[in-house]
Amino acid sequence: MITALAGGVGAARMLRGLLAVAAPGDVTAIVNTGDDVVLHGLHVSPDLDTVTYTLAGAIDPERGWGLAGESWAAMEALERYGGNTWFRLGDRDLATHMYRTQRLSDGAPLSQVTAEIAGAWDVGARLIPMTDDRVETRVTVMGEGEIGFQEYFVGRQHGVAISAVRFAGALEARPAPGVLDAIAGATRVVICPSNPFVSIGPLLEVPGLRHAVEARRRDTVAVSPIVAGAALKGPADRMLVELGHEASVVGVARLYAPLAATLVIDDADAKLARAVEAAGIRCVVTHTVMRTPEDAAALAKVVLDA
Amino acid sequence: MITALAGGVGAARMLRGLLAVAAPGDVTAIVNTGDDVVLHGLHVSPDLDTVTYTLAGAIDPERGWGLAGESWAAMEALERYGGNTWFRLGDRDLATHMYRTQRLSDGAPLSQVTAEIAGAWDVGARLIPMTDDRVETRVTVMGEGEIGFQEYFVGRQHGVAISAVRFAGALEARPAPGVLDAIAGATRVVICPSNPFVSIGPLLEVPGLRHAVEARRRDTVAVSPIVAGAALKGPADRMLVELGHEASVVGVARLYAPLAATLVIDDADAKLARAVEAAGIRCVVTHTVMRTPEDAAALAKVVLDA
Repeated sequence: MITALAGGVGAARMLRGLLAVAAPGDVTAIVNTGDDVVLHGLHVSPDLDTVTYTLAGAIDPERGWGLAGESWAAMEALERYGGNTWFRLGDRDLATHMYRTQRLSDGAPLSQVTAEIAGAWDVGARLIPMTDDRVETRVTVMGEGEIGFQEYFVGRQHGVAISAVRFAGALEARPAPGVLDAIAGATRVVICPSNPFVSIGPLLEVPGLRHAVEARRRDTVAVSPIVAGAALKGPADRMLVELGHEASVVGVARLYAPLAATLVIDDADAKLARAVEAAGIRCVVTHTVMRTPEDAAALAKVVLDA
Repeated sequence: MITALAGGVGAARMLRGLLAVAAPGDVTAIVNTGDDVVLHGLHVSPDLDTVTYTLAGAIDPERGWGLAGESWAAMEALERYGGNTWFRLGDRDLATHMYRTQRLSDGAPLSQVTAEIAGAWDVGARLIPMTDDRVETRVTVMGEGEIGFQEYFVGRQHGVAISAVRFAGALEARPAPGVLDAIAGATRVVICPSNPFVSIGPLLEVPGLRHAVEARRRDTVAVSPIVAGAALKGPADRMLVELGHEASVVGVARLYAPLAATLVIDDADAKLARAVEAAGIRCVVTHTVMRTPEDAAALAKVVLDA
C-alpha cells in the first residue's frame, strides 16, 4: 500500500506514475484542500480536480489544469455582468463544482463527494481530501496584508512577495476518515513534488497528520519540487526565499528531514547531494521532471525502491 | 407610470408590449420570486430571468425560457456524476445564476442584483423582485405530500393533481424597496396573464402587497391567462379546477374582482363577457394571445386604454 501526500499538478503526475507501477488498488492520495475556494456559490477544489482529471486522462495537457477540449461559454457570458472571471471555470468543469456543491449542501462530507467524483472518472486511486472541514490557506502580501490563496495564486499570478502563510481553520480541523489509517498502514509514504508551503503545508497542519507522517519517517520518501533552484510550476522557489529558506534542494531537505528518510532530487542537482544528506536526509538522484507518463513511471519506481 | 405584476412567459410578453407603447422609463415590473430555487448552490430566479431575457430579445423563442443559441456542456458533463439535470441550465444562463449567487453572497439584496442584471441586458423596464426575502412556493401533491414548486413544475412537468399551494416564508417577507411605491404611484396597474396561483399568488401574499393593489383597484387591469378554458402555457387551467374554481375567464374574474376593476379576455371567450361582469369586474374583449411583438403591443394598448 502506497500513500501519497498530494497538491496539484506535480502530485497528479507523480500519482499517475505510481499507478503505473503499483498493483491495482494500492495507491491512496491524501489531497490538499487548503486552496479550495467558493466562487459564485460553487465549491471549487482545485487540487482534487487536477488530480482527478489527470488520473482520468482528461486534463488539459497544455494548461495543466481543467479539462481537455473545454468550452468557456459561461465565463464569456459572465463578462456581461462584470462578474469575477479571473478564476477561469470551463463549462464542463463547472459540472464538477455544481455536483460537489449540491452534495455538500445535501450534507455529504467532502471525502464522500470526492470518492463519488473519483469513481465517476474511474481514476484507479483512492483520493481522500486531507479533511472534511474547512481549512483556508491565506498569504500575507508584503506591504499589503492578508489575501486568500487563490487571489494570490491565480488573481495575482503569484507575482507578489509574501511574508507569511497561514491555514485558517486548520487547528479545528480533523483528518478526513481514512487519512491517518492510510498513513499508518502504508508500506511507502510519498511526499509528492508539490509546493512544501501551500500544498503539503496545509496537510501537515491538520491535527494529527504531521505526527502520523513523522511516525512513518523511515518509510517516507519526498520528491523535491525544486529542480536547479527553480520550481517547475508555481511559486515554490520564491516562497522558499521569501519565507527565509534556501531556494534549492537543500532548502527542501531541511524542511522535509523531520518527515522523510529520503529525498529524491533531480540529476540537475546531483552536486548538491552531499549538502542534502548533511541536512539529515538520505539523498537519491534521478530524473524527476515528469514530461511524459514514462518519466512519471520511472520516477515512481525509484520512489518505491528507495 | 405603469406597474405590472409579473410571472414568467406570459408576463414577459405583456411587458414587451407595454414597453412598445409606453414612454421610455415608464414601465415597472414587480416579479414573482416564489419559484426561485437553489440548484447546485446557485440561486436561480426563473421568472426574473424569463422577463429579463425576453425584454432583452435574448430569450429562446421556441422553448420560451433560457437563452437563444444556448449550449449545454455543463448539463451534459453533470450526467457523468448522476447530478440533477431535470432542471436544465444552459452554459450562458449559468453565468446569470453565478453572478446572482456571488452578489447575494457578497450581501447585496436581490433587488439590487436584479437591477444590475437588468441593466447589463438593457431591458428598458425597471424590474423589482416582489421581495428581497426568501419566499418559497410549495404545492401539495394529491396522495403524496408537499414538494417544491420547481419539482412540481419542471420535475413532474405539472402533470400531477395538487390540493394546495402555500408560500413558505411569505408572512415574514417584506416587499422589496420600491414595490409599494410603484403600485401606489402608477397610473395603471397591470396584472399580467400569469398563473393566478403560483405567479401572481406569491406576490399578493407578501404583507402589504395585496392591500396596495386593492387600494388601486380602480386603475388596475388584469389580463386573463385562461383562453377558451385552457392556459396558453403551464397548469393554470387544471390548478383552477383542482383548487376549487372554474377553469374559465369567469373563474379568473372571481379571483381578480377584489383587485382589478377590469378583466381583459380573449375574443374566444366573448360569449362569457356577461358572466365575467356578473362576477363584479368590467370586461374588455380583445385578441390576447401574444404570438408576435405586434400582438403584444396591441394588447398593451387595450390594457392602457381600458
